[in-house]
Amino acid sequence: MKVGALLTSAGINIGLCVLFLSLYSILRKQPQNVKVYFGRSISRTHRRPLLERFVPSPSWIMRSLQYTEDEILNTAGLDAVVFNRVLVFSIRIFSVAAILCVFGILPLNYFGQDMHHVLIPSASLETFTIENVQERSRWLWVHCVVLYIISGVACFLLYLEYKHIARLRLHHLVQTNDYPSRFTVLVRGIPKSSHESFSSAVDSFFTKYHAPSYLSHLVVHKVGKLQKIVMGAKKAYRKFRHFKGTDVDQTCRSVTYQCCLCGVSSNSFQLLPIEEQERENPSVKDSNLNLPDEECASAFVFFKTRYAALIVSEILQTSNPMKWVTSLAPERDDMYWSNLWLPYKQLWIRHIATLLGSIVFMFIFLAPVTFIQGLSQLETLQQRFPFLKGILKGNYIPKLVTGYLPSVILQIFLYTVPPIMMLFSTLEGPISHSERKKSACCKVLFFTIWNVFFFNVLSGSVINQLNALSSPKEIPMQLAKAIPLQATFFTTYVLTSGWASLSSELMQLFALIWNFVRKYVLRKKGDSDLIFSFPYHTELPKVMLFGLLGFTCSVLAPLILPFLLIYFFLAYVVYRNQFINVYWTRYDTGGLYWPIAYNTTIFSIVLTQIICLAVFGLKKSPVASGFTIPLIILTLLFNQYCRKRLLPLFRTFPAQVSIMSLKVFRIYPLYI
Amino acid sequence: MKVGALLTSAGINIGLCVLFLSLYSILRKQPQNVKVYFGRSISRTHRRPLLERFVPSPSWIMRSLQYTEDEILNTAGLDAVVFNRVLVFSIRIFSVAAILCVFGILPLNYFGQDMHHVLIPSASLETFTIENVQERSRWLWVHCVVLYIISGVACFLLYLEYKHIARLRLHHLVQTNDYPSRFTVLVRGIPKSSHESFSSAVDSFFTKYHAPSYLSHLVVHKVGKLQKIVMGAKKAYRKFRHFKGTDVDQTCRSVTYQCCLCGVSSNSFQLLPIEEQERENPSVKDSNLNLPDEECASAFVFFKTRYAALIVSEILQTSNPMKWVTSLAPERDDMYWSNLWLPYKQLWIRHIATLLGSIVFMFIFLAPVTFIQGLSQLETLQQRFPFLKGILKGNYIPKLVTGYLPSVILQIFLYTVPPIMMLFSTLEGPISHSERKKSACCKVLFFTIWNVFFFNVLSGSVINQLNALSSPKEIPMQLAKAIPLQATFFTTYVLTSGWASLSSELMQLFALIWNFVRKYVLRKKGDSDLIFSFPYHTELPKVMLFGLLGFTCSVLAPLILPFLLIYFFLAYVVYRNQFINVYWTRYDTGGLYWPIAYNTTIFSIVLTQIICLAVFGLKKSPVASGFTIPLIILTLLFNQYCRKRLLPLFRTFPAQVSIMSLKVFRIYPLYI
Repeated sequence: MKVGALLTSAGINIGLCVLFLSLYSILRKQPQNVKVYFGRSISRTHRRPLLERFVPSPSWIMRSLQYTEDEILNTAGLDAVVFNRVLVFSIRIFSVAAILCVFGILPLNYFGQDMHHVLIPSASLETFTIENVQERSRWLWVHCVVLYIISGVACFLLYLEYKHIARLRLHHLVQTNDYPSRFTVLVRGIPKSSHESFSSAVDSFFTKYHAPSYLSHLVVHKVGKLQKIVMGAKKAYRKFRHFKGTDVDQTCRSVTYQCCLCGVSSNSFQLLPIEEQERENPSVKDSNLNLPDEECASAFVFFKTRYAALIVSEILQTSNPMKWVTSLAPERDDMYWSNLWLPYKQLWIRHIATLLGSIVFMFIFLAPVTFIQGLSQLETLQQRFPFLKGILKGNYIPKLVTGYLPSVILQIFLYTVPPIMMLFSTLEGPISHSERKKSACCKVLFFTIWNVFFFNVLSGSVINQLNALSSPKEIPMQLAKAIPLQATFFTTYVLTSGWASLSSELMQLFALIWNFVRKYVLRKKGDSDLIFSFPYHTELPKVMLFGLLGFTCSVLAPLILPFLLIYFFLAYVVYRNQFINVYWTRYDTGGLYWPIAYNTTIFSIVLTQIICLAVFGLKKSPVASGFTIPLIILTLLFNQYCRKRLLPLFRTFPAQVSIMSLKVFRIYPLYI
Repeated sequence: MKVGALLTSAGINIGLCVLFLSLYSILRKQPQNVKVYFGRSISRTHRRPLLERFVPSPSWIMRSLQYTEDEILNTAGLDAVVFNRVLVFSIRIFSVAAILCVFGILPLNYFGQDMHHVLIPSASLETFTIENVQERSRWLWVHCVVLYIISGVACFLLYLEYKHIARLRLHHLVQTNDYPSRFTVLVRGIPKSSHESFSSAVDSFFTKYHAPSYLSHLVVHKVGKLQKIVMGAKKAYRKFRHFKGTDVDQTCRSVTYQCCLCGVSSNSFQLLPIEEQERENPSVKDSNLNLPDEECASAFVFFKTRYAALIVSEILQTSNPMKWVTSLAPERDDMYWSNLWLPYKQLWIRHIATLLGSIVFMFIFLAPVTFIQGLSQLETLQQRFPFLKGILKGNYIPKLVTGYLPSVILQIFLYTVPPIMMLFSTLEGPISHSERKKSACCKVLFFTIWNVFFFNVLSGSVINQLNALSSPKEIPMQLAKAIPLQATFFTTYVLTSGWASLSSELMQLFALIWNFVRKYVLRKKGDSDLIFSFPYHTELPKVMLFGLLGFTCSVLAPLILPFLLIYFFLAYVVYRNQFINVYWTRYDTGGLYWPIAYNTTIFSIVLTQIICLAVFGLKKSPVASGFTIPLIILTLLFNQYCRKRLLPLFRTFPAQVSIMSLKVFRIYPLYI
């Protein structure tokens, strides 16, 4: 690929981006789209004059940049801040990398060989990669030094972010001290007994062992079959009424799935007797029917202090680790009710099964895709649908079809990945939405890195990949050979897939179309009450993938960095806007996406170093490759230090915070 | 190797064993050896008539078999019981395996090919291995079924043992409820502050956060340099007096290393004021000199109840996980004082460094050994020491030298491994002797399995091993080819190394010689007061190695099993005898050797299955190899179940046990 072609492609994509952004700035001002673009904050919008509504304006960008971290924290939660910090980190490190690499390494690569240089626009992109540097070149130490600087700065920035987010998390823990979930422990695997019910078993257990702090409990009930039918009928009736346009409530809250009924109400610490609590809690007695509920082997147990709940959740309760399993309860909105009745002893095997399932899916995903892509080639199409022959005879259309169809099919299949991974995560049996999404995020991340990065780099059939796996020593060499060559592809990938995904995220195409269909085809008057929470499980892997591309290409093929930097700037603006305006934060992991992002970044850095080591080896520069080894060791040591120093804060709550909160609560005796 | 040769070798080794055992039964009756063979229980020995003293008798074997598990538990601790159970498990599983394989598989292997069978004594040993079975044989399913039965029985027995030991451990925890260490938390990484001492920092921290249960504390002091000199002088003086034969106390307790002085005394829960405690504790004021001690950033904190100590030790204390690090304190005799002053934040890097060190040691160990072995060959010896030429001219002596010298050198070098691994474990910074020994045990285990098993099987240079590592898919194939061939070597290894090590363990050769030298050369009158604790770090790896050999050879080369069974029977008798009579149990891990033994056994079983899979593949029996894959998966699932169901009990204490103990202590208010 020539530089000119790349710049043309960049130009087209920039044009498209500007077009989409302008379109967005118009669409967002239309009153009928309020629900799509301001689902988060409807009340704040106001009517505008007609002219202004059809003039694109960049004001939303300015506003998006002006939001402070506190605003994001308060409106979109800690996870949004973490996502934001990941973008900030990426912008910082890739700014440094871009300056160093574009001004330091690019000229070295370009003049790396004694050759006739054509005009830059028609120069091949490969003359800008490390491929162009001669073997045994004495300039390779520059690459090595730049690698040192990038790794050092990245670690330093990572550490700063880690500390900052850990501080925010602690702050978040202190702030959410009065949440009822902090006082609640979810007990699972209550042993069955013939002579007493679960409820009395829980009561006697906690009265016996945790008498000073035990307050009360609620056993989880599974809705019986008859009740399910009644509920279904009620739902249908409500739908029907809704369809007629009457009694539509405009709440922003999404419908929670009420398979299991349980009363975790925020006033459960006022020491009401259980009967009274149940009377107060509408959902338990919702049906007014005295249908037999099935008791599950799970219960919510409430404690007087947060510290007591923390202790009970962390200490092994009995001599059988599969019984009386305790963990802090999720928030009510975060609760994934339908998994609550799963027997605890099933979980480990579900975990293994879904893990295996997703690994198998990851490996064989490309096989059927390739097969279908093969089917949809020109000849096959013509054979299957003879009437297409006329259309496909021209000059451009066949090119378009053969050029785009495979990648379109791949893209469509790729869209199915997050839902499938989400399904796997659901089957795993998490008890909270946030846990489920986090687990899906990890799975999609692995999938993306494997299938987009490694598959493209080690490109070839699945068999080749397996061969590469069986000789791990060869992998760095393979990568070292492939990365500079694949850099062109990655650059265009950033331009097309990266920028396009941001535009589509901003435009909310699906929601827009659905809104249109709803309003003008189905002729519903009310707004849809479906507001999604932020899809971390699709967006974080994307950002992390671009980070990985940035690190691995930085020293070897620095031309990708400016485009990547634009992507990150754009992502920064877009996602901030989305957090504030579009998505509704129903649940929050409390910053648990950070360790995932951190681990991926460390992986990217170490992978980059290993690839550079191999490249320096291929270029026969023993000094440069020799100096890279201590860098790898230092990076791993840094990682180990962070794991020791900061990771525990993301796994548990420090006693200090919980006990301090105890003191706060002494001031407000209402809660005790 | 022929069967006849093997039987001859077995006969010689059995003869040697009988000789050693008889020698032992004589030596143990000599009054001057009482200290060597009955260090554990001197008081019980009595004078015998002279004639009886010189007649070998098997009575000690009967007595060793008669000890009940409770006796071993009470005299030698839970670790000894675990070791005993490992032997019982090995005897059981290899009895089953021996019956199945000798009567089921051995004939199949022997008649596996249409060939002329010579008389059994002159048949090659390889005709008894799976090598002799034809490719595509329809009898390979028998091997597969036997593999299923052995794996199934092994898992079943493992589970029984695991449950049994877990129960014993819980019982042990309940029984040791009144130990002071259960009420004591060791706090490390106390932050330095200019305006208050460590002591007052500890006091204010625990009074602030754990007021209801906090009792008192003691800061660890590091002995100053001057004090060290004074202590050294005192020690020398005591040695001198000792040498003169006066004032020798006959205590069985070994000398504890008193680098750091600290008073964890068993009466520290009587709520004495700290000053009084310190007055009571002799070691703190031992020197009667008012020398300045250096305060360490560690302290022992005492709590009123065991549950409170457990909570404090398990919950993250502050928002900095490197400060105020809490863990349950080891017993006083178990405490490894000299590591107590190490700054906590150093530990993670020490851990990594020693891990790397021991891995490097493991890999390069054989390089210098091979080099020295090469040096000490016949020609080199003759060149270096010309006077040897005469001696080395005969027919037998050169054979002896070339045959034995390399293996003798290897053995001598192997003797250095446990001390070196112990040194590594010391550098790692454990705070208790038991932890140090456990860590050394793991290291020696890895070393043994790698250097004895894998090195011999994949035999060849170190370079070859590294090549094997880089293509992991090839390893099972290599093993599958090598194991049946190497089975002969392993059989002789069991005969020589296994049986001989038991004899030497029983004879206590070093102690015997030292005792002799001490009594008749140095002419000391008193007995040596050095009684060792059981060397788990050398003995457990040996037993586990033989288990690994047994599993991997069982189906492929079953002729090893009878010899192995004899080894385990003998080991059962010998070690029980040693536990009761010889070793002194100063410290105990509370059964923590069991997870190591369990993991190794699971590793052995899965390795066996993988090797069998590869062998069935080599023999072109798709049915047998196909059926082996679910077996591997089932075994791994079983392992995962055990990890979930039973392993947590070996990592922490259940609250139930601690709280129940609280109730016991309410009966004896002395302790509160």
